[in-house]
Amino acid sequence: MVIADRIYPLLEGSSAIRKLFEEGKALAAEVGWENVYDYSLGNPSVPAPEAVKDSIIRNLNEKDPLYVHGYMNNAGYEDVRAAIAKDLNERFGSDFSLEDIIMTVGAAAGINAILHLFLNPGDEVIAFAPFFGEYRNYVITAGGELKAVPADTETFQLNIAALGEVITDKTKLIIVNNPNNPTGVIYSGETLDRLQEAIKEAEKRIGHPIYVISDEPYRELVYDGNELPWMPDHIKNCLIVYSFSKSLSLPGERIGYIAIPKNIENYEEVQGGLMVTNRVATVNAPSLIQLTVADCLKERPNLSVYDSNRKLLYNKLTELGFECLKPQGTFYLFMKSPIEDYDRFTEEAKEEHLLLVDASGFGCPGYVRLAYCVSEDMIRRSFAAFERLAARMGL
Amino acid sequence: MVIADRIYPLLEGSSAIRKLFEEGKALAAEVGWENVYDYSLGNPSVPAPEAVKDSIIRNLNEKDPLYVHGYMNNAGYEDVRAAIAKDLNERFGSDFSLEDIIMTVGAAAGINAILHLFLNPGDEVIAFAPFFGEYRNYVITAGGELKAVPADTETFQLNIAALGEVITDKTKLIIVNNPNNPTGVIYSGETLDRLQEAIKEAEKRIGHPIYVISDEPYRELVYDGNELPWMPDHIKNCLIVYSFSKSLSLPGERIGYIAIPKNIENYEEVQGGLMVTNRVATVNAPSLIQLTVADCLKERPNLSVYDSNRKLLYNKLTELGFECLKPQGTFYLFMKSPIEDYDRFTEEAKEEHLLLVDASGFGCPGYVRLAYCVSEDMIRRSFAAFERLAARMGL
Repeated sequence: MVIADRIYPLLEGSSAIRKLFEEGKALAAEVGWENVYDYSLGNPSVPAPEAVKDSIIRNLNEKDPLYVHGYMNNAGYEDVRAAIAKDLNERFGSDFSLEDIIMTVGAAAGINAILHLFLNPGDEVIAFAPFFGEYRNYVITAGGELKAVPADTETFQLNIAALGEVITDKTKLIIVNNPNNPTGVIYSGETLDRLQEAIKEAEKRIGHPIYVISDEPYRELVYDGNELPWMPDHIKNCLIVYSFSKSLSLPGERIGYIAIPKNIENYEEVQGGLMVTNRVATVNAPSLIQLTVADCLKERPNLSVYDSNRKLLYNKLTELGFECLKPQGTFYLFMKSPIEDYDRFTEEAKEEHLLLVDASGFGCPGYVRLAYCVSEDMIRRSFAAFERLAARMGL
Repeated sequence: MVIADRIYPLLEGSSAIRKLFEEGKALAAEVGWENVYDYSLGNPSVPAPEAVKDSIIRNLNEKDPLYVHGYMNNAGYEDVRAAIAKDLNERFGSDFSLEDIIMTVGAAAGINAILHLFLNPGDEVIAFAPFFGEYRNYVITAGGELKAVPADTETFQLNIAALGEVITDKTKLIIVNNPNNPTGVIYSGETLDRLQEAIKEAEKRIGHPIYVISDEPYRELVYDGNELPWMPDHIKNCLIVYSFSKSLSLPGERIGYIAIPKNIENYEEVQGGLMVTNRVATVNAPSLIQLTVADCLKERPNLSVYDSNRKLLYNKLTELGFECLKPQGTFYLFMKSPIEDYDRFTEEAKEEHLLLVDASGFGCPGYVRLAYCVSEDMIRRSFAAFERLAARMGL
């Protein structure tokens, strides 16, 4: 083995995902793509707004290519960062200035820049189950250890009661993903206030601050007039990580930012440090698309498509007797296995050509995640398969 | 201090660079930009070819935005990787297939993906002085230690004679940057053969393979009909890292690749591992610009501009009595301090408004680097300043 010890287990996890993908492909080859119902991928199904294309072409036609494709301040173009700060301030009453915004290669690179900045070898990062499985890989790669707080399967809010015993002297960071992938739940302001209290108490015990990474790629994907709490209103030491992947349907372009509230503890050290770890990892976020997102800050995804998919799927599945969380945000639906034998459930779903994601990887076995960023047509065609699955489950 | 111990020193290094930049800005405010001769930045001065713009607009107009801006295989679009493999095979007689090519967020992210894959805490990476200073930060961030082989200031080829005693049981990787930043030197095939022999010998002693990272962002920037040796023809266990920053003048776009020769030891582990560490760090390389570089593989930078700058500057400086390496590639010129008191030299250069980069950061004090990716006009205007500097140095 020539590769690092901590990386080796990641390869095995990766082969599992590849295996699933290959199984799906083999299935499609056998029965045809139209008879496979793929709910596995969080890949936006709504195209980027026309304004994105217009902005790219305008920038290419009107600006100097040395500017559009060139190096800028490693933290991003200053007017792009100023525009984002202004937009956040208008929406949330915050007081960001351009220095507080660091453009990143998507949310993943933003989280990685934070982890690499904070983690000494063996330091711990906490996530609340169920959580985006890739968090574990980010933390391991940065030399740390991810500790999971077990899910509160009653409310699927943050399980604050169980947090205290997961925090140790080595806890540096907590990741909160709101609205949450994979459940679609919005953590309420009250929940976040309770989190802040629990953190304050723990900090007294362990003697150093704990920072919260607020991972918000689904910030604009919220339904039914629900409001997403603004993290800095509830959590003192928070770092906001954002991605335009979902809000502008640009997941392949890798564009996002970190926003650093001015009143966090050790602001200068953290801000200066993130400028460095972000630069060391990727130099800067892609240039042309930085200019584009700054032009498109008022654009919103076509939520109506996701919303009607959400209702269609949720209504059908609950009608069939499946126990589902009603998604408040994101484009995911979280469903409980109707039987104790969870492996049999996912196996039989596969036999019905339903590709659902086993939530064990999210730290919450007994559940599956359905990504409904798919065509309405596929959802409708999948209903017969769900009906057969319900029958097999004795519903 | 809330940030990681290994990162703290990077902040200090970063402030030094910022200080230089601020000094330059202050100087410009005082005497006017036209009287400051900034040779500090490796930012291409030749605009991207028109083909880049045409390709971007064509992709936006002709292809589905869900494809152009969407997720693809984390290692990159398969046809982009196939096109790069084919292009390399035609040029270098290699036998890459698409599986051997991983698209990365520029060369920096490529190197980081390799470092994170290979390095256990405390493992060592070797670079030959003078080397691109950021290598040290990459290695430290990944939890390793960079060991420098002192420069061979006679030939500025790789100092193979001094390599043996730098290699230890903890040596995992060697970085070779050809042509070299900051010297502009091309390492010859003969030098690389000697490197391979030294590695083979060391491997017997330490009992594990050492891999060479071949960092080739300046591959296409070679002058006077010089030929750049093809690394896999000389080094068995090499990983090629490439960037389109210089060859297509796209440094802000962050687009490059890792190419993995099929015959390296532990191919499967390394290839599978790089797919993982690259995905964990950045998910994938930016999508639209992947399609663009694949369209522009036959495009070359306008070398004539750099070449004439090179001759102009080299001829003038040597005429004035400065000792310079004649650049064979890159857009850098390496110059020796004419006096023992190196600090006085760089100080007096600054007094003449000449912004040169102190090569101490490249592991080679006593020298400075001049980036001649600037306007010919600036070079000509700087001559009077160089004349005064030469006089002050007693040349």
